[in-house]
Amino acid sequence: MKEPPGFLAACRRQPVRCTPIWIMRQAGRYLPEYRAIRSRIPFLDLCKDPALAAEVTLQPVRLLGVDAAILFSDILIPLEAMGVRLRFTPAPLLENPVRDRKEIEALRIPDPVGDLSFVLDTIRILRRELGGTPLIGFCGAPFTLACYLTEGKGSRDFATVKKMMFSEPELFRALMEKLTAMSIAYLRAQIEAGVQAVQIFDTWAGILAPADYGEFVLPHLRALIRGLDRGATPVILFIKGVGGLLELIRDCGADVLALDWMVSLERARRLLGTEIAVQGNLDPALLLTPKPRIEAAVQRILEENGGRPGHIFNLGHGILPATPVDHVRFLVETVHRLSAAEIAWPLTKGKE
Amino acid sequence: MKEPPGFLAACRRQPVRCTPIWIMRQAGRYLPEYRAIRSRIPFLDLCKDPALAAEVTLQPVRLLGVDAAILFSDILIPLEAMGVRLRFTPAPLLENPVRDRKEIEALRIPDPVGDLSFVLDTIRILRRELGGTPLIGFCGAPFTLACYLTEGKGSRDFATVKKMMFSEPELFRALMEKLTAMSIAYLRAQIEAGVQAVQIFDTWAGILAPADYGEFVLPHLRALIRGLDRGATPVILFIKGVGGLLELIRDCGADVLALDWMVSLERARRLLGTEIAVQGNLDPALLLTPKPRIEAAVQRILEENGGRPGHIFNLGHGILPATPVDHVRFLVETVHRLSAAEIAWPLTKGKE
Repeated sequence: MKEPPGFLAACRRQPVRCTPIWIMRQAGRYLPEYRAIRSRIPFLDLCKDPALAAEVTLQPVRLLGVDAAILFSDILIPLEAMGVRLRFTPAPLLENPVRDRKEIEALRIPDPVGDLSFVLDTIRILRRELGGTPLIGFCGAPFTLACYLTEGKGSRDFATVKKMMFSEPELFRALMEKLTAMSIAYLRAQIEAGVQAVQIFDTWAGILAPADYGEFVLPHLRALIRGLDRGATPVILFIKGVGGLLELIRDCGADVLALDWMVSLERARRLLGTEIAVQGNLDPALLLTPKPRIEAAVQRILEENGGRPGHIFNLGHGILPATPVDHVRFLVETVHRLSAAEIAWPLTKGKE
Repeated sequence: MKEPPGFLAACRRQPVRCTPIWIMRQAGRYLPEYRAIRSRIPFLDLCKDPALAAEVTLQPVRLLGVDAAILFSDILIPLEAMGVRLRFTPAPLLENPVRDRKEIEALRIPDPVGDLSFVLDTIRILRRELGGTPLIGFCGAPFTLACYLTEGKGSRDFATVKKMMFSEPELFRALMEKLTAMSIAYLRAQIEAGVQAVQIFDTWAGILAPADYGEFVLPHLRALIRGLDRGATPVILFIKGVGGLLELIRDCGADVLALDWMVSLERARRLLGTEIAVQGNLDPALLLTPKPRIEAAVQRILEENGGRPGHIFNLGHGILPATPVDHVRFLVETVHRLSAAEIAWPLTKGKE
């Protein structure tokens, strides 16, 4: 489609001509072209139809000019292959939550080639269609999957998963180890099928105290990343509410840390050091506001980054369904334009 | 009821015999004695009945031995006096959200003595009944009230309030100024009626990027605290998701910063410096777990505090309704017992 836009170089903290950008949930409800396809097919069926899943993956690349595509799927898809009955209402609902040893032992570790072939087929179609635009694969992190598996749905306080974690740590560990093994196999298969980067969504890890995260979750995340045998494929880690965990995760093995907007990018870079790239971190609500406000917010984030190599622009979480498409196009164009002029800024090296 | 337990001394960063503790939502559904009263009277009516509101305020002091009482009420109560039609379903619902200039101008600033006399009467009853146990008054911070006023209810992404804040900053400022003026009058009246400390709940401020918080919210919070003319009455500030804002708010004028559990108390104290006390920060879910786990978590928090003066123990947010009362009693006893032995710990001054 176009020249390699620097996304993979930025993941590797190499210099780029301008800051690359992609957008979490860029294939989604805010796009009329996506809604048109979804009006004909339920969400889960769309995830399992390689031609249509590839089509909605491609939409934002064609329509917005983002610098990477992300596989259209859902982090809960492999749980279905593990034996969980999954529905979207539209919020995800697991009909048989997993809460005791018998239920954990009953979870099978799927063979991605046999059980999740539709994902790998989608990847292969996309690599043919995307040309030079890199393709990101993904999975849910073990803790976030454990949240869904134990709670059965989203939660305000995640009392079920925490109760298991604190009260039955051996049981919790068994669940985490199974999910880690599954995720390693799943991401390896995605890489083999052709994704050029992977993002691990530990969306809910930010609900834990840092010390508890370090004790109960981080070892499994490290094992997952270490187990990928990924060669040069960059790993991006996303945690909503990552601000309290920065020192703990800077050496978890990820190449890129995705930041939500509740932590200043400047503070994050100071705490993270120079050995890890960052992704983020615009408040998605800013895309609902007038263009001068969007431009000022982009400028501020680029300034907070201070010209350091290894920055991929993104939102701090998924794009809101009410977002005007025109504002998203403006965001992409503004990030490219302002960052290309980056040389004019003072590097904030004094602050390191 | 008993000897002054050091809560006010800890707010002032003075040495205490043992770490004082109270619990957010300590008067609440987890207590059978509270549920017995609530079975006879709707929530809003309970807030407006001074004798019963005082009774449920006293319950946790009598039953658990906590070191401070907090007025039983709701942060949305004064909004009703401003002209908002309020219901609890049980989640709060504002029937007439406030979204344009006319609606903001129509909000009246209540006279607490005339319009909220039931709150002041409750305070006067409590001061007679509480003996030496200090009484905490409270209000919602302007931003959190603005969230409810504009959204009309709780929200996942707070798109309405953010859209107003970013797109119509003059309008947002008019709303914040009105809420600040209301809160000053309301807290002053509470102090005059007898509360010995106040907690400002900016529960939702943690959804903002730090730079946006500094630009749009912090000036109003400062004005509120400055405007209290409070003498020696300590001000506690609570923000859920405070971790990203620590450097910004350490000099906001509050005497105590309440910490959620997503930030390590040790990191918070390092970033906050020695001029502000802290409150917190146990994950409420830990009270659902066996006592040895609770004790270990208390020990860790006390160790993270490292014997520094100015620590009030609390949860990082409200107690969960499923919490066993026996575990709460154990928590209170454990905090007192372990902190009284505090002298045996190494002070972590080297980490300052």
